[in-house]
Amino acid sequence: MSAIPKEFQQKTARLSEEVTQPFANSKKIYVQGSRPDIRVPMREISQSAAHGLDGAEGEKNPPITVYDTSGPFTDPDVTVDLMKGMPDVRTPWIAERDDTEVLDGPSSEFGTKRQNDPALAHLRFEHIRAPRRAKAGANVSQMHYARQGIITPEMEYVAIRENQRLDEFRNDARYEKLLRQHPGENYGANLPQDITPEFVREEIAMGRAIIPANINHPELEPMIIGRNFRVKINTNIGNSAVSSSIDEEVEKMAWSARWGGDTLMDLSTGKNIHETREWVLRNSPMPIGTVPIYQALEKVNGKSEDLTWELFRDTLIEQAEQGVDYFTIHAGVLLRYVPMTANRVTGIVSRGGSIMAKWCLAHHEENFLYTHFEDICEIMKAYDVSFSLGDGLRPGSLADANDEAQFGELETLGELTKVAWEHDVQVMIEGPGHVPMQMIKVNMEKELEDCFEAPFYTLGPLTTDIAPGYDHITSGIGAAQIGWYGCAMLCYVTPKEHLGLPNKADVREGIITYKISAHAADLAKGLPGAQIRDNALSKARFEFRWEDQFNLGLDPEKARSYHDETLPKDSAKVAHFCSMCGPHFCSMKISQDVRDFAAAQGVGVEVVMEKGMKDKAKEFVDSGAEIYQKA
Amino acid sequence: MSAIPKEFQQKTARLSEEVTQPFANSKKIYVQGSRPDIRVPMREISQSAAHGLDGAEGEKNPPITVYDTSGPFTDPDVTVDLMKGMPDVRTPWIAERDDTEVLDGPSSEFGTKRQNDPALAHLRFEHIRAPRRAKAGANVSQMHYARQGIITPEMEYVAIRENQRLDEFRNDARYEKLLRQHPGENYGANLPQDITPEFVREEIAMGRAIIPANINHPELEPMIIGRNFRVKINTNIGNSAVSSSIDEEVEKMAWSARWGGDTLMDLSTGKNIHETREWVLRNSPMPIGTVPIYQALEKVNGKSEDLTWELFRDTLIEQAEQGVDYFTIHAGVLLRYVPMTANRVTGIVSRGGSIMAKWCLAHHEENFLYTHFEDICEIMKAYDVSFSLGDGLRPGSLADANDEAQFGELETLGELTKVAWEHDVQVMIEGPGHVPMQMIKVNMEKELEDCFEAPFYTLGPLTTDIAPGYDHITSGIGAAQIGWYGCAMLCYVTPKEHLGLPNKADVREGIITYKISAHAADLAKGLPGAQIRDNALSKARFEFRWEDQFNLGLDPEKARSYHDETLPKDSAKVAHFCSMCGPHFCSMKISQDVRDFAAAQGVGVEVVMEKGMKDKAKEFVDSGAEIYQKA
Repeated sequence: MSAIPKEFQQKTARLSEEVTQPFANSKKIYVQGSRPDIRVPMREISQSAAHGLDGAEGEKNPPITVYDTSGPFTDPDVTVDLMKGMPDVRTPWIAERDDTEVLDGPSSEFGTKRQNDPALAHLRFEHIRAPRRAKAGANVSQMHYARQGIITPEMEYVAIRENQRLDEFRNDARYEKLLRQHPGENYGANLPQDITPEFVREEIAMGRAIIPANINHPELEPMIIGRNFRVKINTNIGNSAVSSSIDEEVEKMAWSARWGGDTLMDLSTGKNIHETREWVLRNSPMPIGTVPIYQALEKVNGKSEDLTWELFRDTLIEQAEQGVDYFTIHAGVLLRYVPMTANRVTGIVSRGGSIMAKWCLAHHEENFLYTHFEDICEIMKAYDVSFSLGDGLRPGSLADANDEAQFGELETLGELTKVAWEHDVQVMIEGPGHVPMQMIKVNMEKELEDCFEAPFYTLGPLTTDIAPGYDHITSGIGAAQIGWYGCAMLCYVTPKEHLGLPNKADVREGIITYKISAHAADLAKGLPGAQIRDNALSKARFEFRWEDQFNLGLDPEKARSYHDETLPKDSAKVAHFCSMCGPHFCSMKISQDVRDFAAAQGVGVEVVMEKGMKDKAKEFVDSGAEIYQKA
Repeated sequence: MSAIPKEFQQKTARLSEEVTQPFANSKKIYVQGSRPDIRVPMREISQSAAHGLDGAEGEKNPPITVYDTSGPFTDPDVTVDLMKGMPDVRTPWIAERDDTEVLDGPSSEFGTKRQNDPALAHLRFEHIRAPRRAKAGANVSQMHYARQGIITPEMEYVAIRENQRLDEFRNDARYEKLLRQHPGENYGANLPQDITPEFVREEIAMGRAIIPANINHPELEPMIIGRNFRVKINTNIGNSAVSSSIDEEVEKMAWSARWGGDTLMDLSTGKNIHETREWVLRNSPMPIGTVPIYQALEKVNGKSEDLTWELFRDTLIEQAEQGVDYFTIHAGVLLRYVPMTANRVTGIVSRGGSIMAKWCLAHHEENFLYTHFEDICEIMKAYDVSFSLGDGLRPGSLADANDEAQFGELETLGELTKVAWEHDVQVMIEGPGHVPMQMIKVNMEKELEDCFEAPFYTLGPLTTDIAPGYDHITSGIGAAQIGWYGCAMLCYVTPKEHLGLPNKADVREGIITYKISAHAADLAKGLPGAQIRDNALSKARFEFRWEDQFNLGLDPEKARSYHDETLPKDSAKVAHFCSMCGPHFCSMKISQDVRDFAAAQGVGVEVVMEKGMKDKAKEFVDSGAEIYQKA
């Protein structure tokens, strides 16, 4: 019998129900790879046919396939039970490589203690696998395989996922109008027409992209982060000492998957960090990142100066064996950079950065994350944990943007990137922060140069400091820009930034904002096929297919609710106007009147205009000038 | 006794109360110009002193002055009564120029009819002034005065307003840290350190800026639109046939002033357009714009083909005599451009543009707004109504961005700008719309070139089509960019765009989003003093002055409510953490610990670090490493 309290079980069951509803008119599909167990999930949104005011059906509209981060949550064929965790996607791939061994139990001291503590039974996830680790001397990172010329199932998976059936779109005449796309300006990125598994392998081998995929996170649906692929977004969740609980964090995670988060960081700093993370990992189809120093600090009761390498090392192993896919490591906060922050307006605003600065100052020694960096690499490659090299000295205000502390650290991150790559460990680089628009581009350029094109992963940047309560927007503006310039992943910011811990509504708002920024960046770069969804939605809008307009949007539920606030009736869903303009003033309707008039003459608008058909014009007026005569 | 129904009066009284609350810790101040009746309103936000955890007061922080659009609404010395209208600011200035005459009553047919219709008494504003018009042969436009070398009170007023007491800031040592600002990248704009009345005059004379200020809108607090000044935002309100009423529209107007709208367009297309506009104008401290063709269309029951020049002319005079400050005129929608929209994904999406296209097609004649453009100029200069030359062919989807129809029309708007300037009539140019990021800049460049640097005024642009319900954000991204490139005014978009008529909450959300975009643009351009507010807010944030952080923000109420969601107590307003990180994990607190440690040694962080003071480090640890020893 389960030791988990009934109340928690009920909550979880309710949650399982709530987060597993498919979106309206959407269907989960799987694209088959080269072997039966490579099944890449996508979401297919069906559309209705065009219709006249008389109700007659016109041109059919094809279904649109969109990138899908929601995993099993929106698959009606999978019974989601958060108490049991998600289906296993990757174990066969990992096992058949035959370079790992399954341990008897956690090899970390802390992991062992928590696993065996009977007092934790009421909040411990109940289906924990024995951890897996590389065999002695083996390196199980995707980068290692890539550099040996091996295309892993993970690489093939992400190639299919990035392609989004674009070749099928290209071979279908129905898509012609939808494929229209303006040329992009890609700042040196290389966006191929078709992403092949070999292209993925090359990018990973060169360090220009990463697939965060710990061998202990087999529930993961692989995804790729790199500037030659679609721009990704990261969401942050996690409790604090002041607020939240395990079920709330699991709910935020599921909510994040549902609304489009590509990766997720569990930044918990409060109670039961280990157990919270286990629940999150076992239920997450997305890669999970953490900042291990947070938990290490919690283990020494918040006293930075008591941190030690040994304690930190044990924490890394503890988390790696749970399945964390990437670690933020603030190894670039060097002793010599700390004084450079002394005259800043907002000092050090990265939690990890300030912790390490305090440690350095207290001990007057170099940052142990830096001095033990190769030791950390050894752990990373034994589980395939990717580095997210933390920007501990990022600016926390416009006044501090692009200063010597920030850029000094960035150069050190470049140095560390090289070290990690010598170990074939995957790396991405974290970036700012608060940066005014005119100073964003140099951040991207400097990162590419100093860090040898390792993927950049930025927080915003926030383009002004004056809008607490709206920092998803101040930062969404900067995020769109840096995504366009080449940033591979954008870390979302919620409306609660600077003010409090986000709840699930904030998570949704933050995600949609960042999906907008990432997509705007894909469009601006010229990612092939990026404009299909825009074109389809605009066509639906012009044809007054309201349901299709809602369903093709990033947040169908909100779009529908806004529309229905003033016009809730079903009949309004095919009406040729909305409450904004009313029936006489809808430009799209008037514009269609003009086209339909021409069509009724059997010619295009241009012919009507060019031939100067006064008579036709008269006929147009005579017939009421409000014609729907397609039928 | 008033003919207005009691219920309406009560609503209005309640509204007068609601919208007239000053913001917390804010005070309305007036800066005196060269004469007693030039009193330029600003908002001064007071700040508390820094404080240690022990409650001891530290460094004092100066009050911050911010640009204030809210007019008498936030002045406790003015009794706001929406039934009576706002105080008169400009009549003495207008009268003393002695180039106008006060008419007996409206000179338009429609205005006269509405004024004298007893059936409208219950909804007619009760304190309508007799209209004023230029004396025969006179030209009363600000451009006309500017070109004659005259600096009007309006010009002096906006110079003081743009300066925002920056010179006083510069002369006060307390502001040194707050004045820090990164150099901007201004794309050829000319942003002087001090804006003088003479600089304003020159900009207006050259057509690079406008002061929309109808002589029949004396309640107006003058403001300027031009790329060498701070970027402005426009808000749209207005009823539709489906939704809203006069009191709701007045409320939205007041709400718009309160939250920071610089100008406001009344786009009503529903009932009682004339009366709604009167209520809005008499209570608005902001310039009011309209699209006169909407009302003209309503007069012919929505039948575009029945529109005539005579009817339109009467509508212009009707509105000019009410006091509308700028008219959107779609005179660039030429017959030859209409066929260019035939293969668009979304045709014509400007209401005015589609109406005129339909008229052109129905009559097979050139757009009467184009053929009668000089007649329109005659009306504009008799009241000083500014042109907002409408982009009737703006793209309504990414697929249609920057096409030949859009750019063809822009060239025609340039041609018309020259004509207007021959009449000394003020002009701004409307721009798109839906444009992906990589195609925004060319819009600005082309506008400056084709339209001879007349101020550009754009709707967004929206950088993707896929987020109905979030188009304030899709467009806020594009707005920030085009503002940076040189756009003078950004027309807001609310979350309801494409879905329904915005309510007052949507108006607030749209405004704050656009204030962010406009301010981000000012920062990026390098507008002198723009960063003061950011710096002050960031300093407050770093010093845990929560109330100051809220009050310096664009939306103090929302910031406070977000913070209080998890930590509502007063004590949390001075706490050195929030619910996001809790007490042990606040980077700013840790960062301050580090500084305070150094301060306690009587040296800076850099000294502690550089001298390698192992002993000091030890002392730091010994003393608990959590020191607040300032006192």
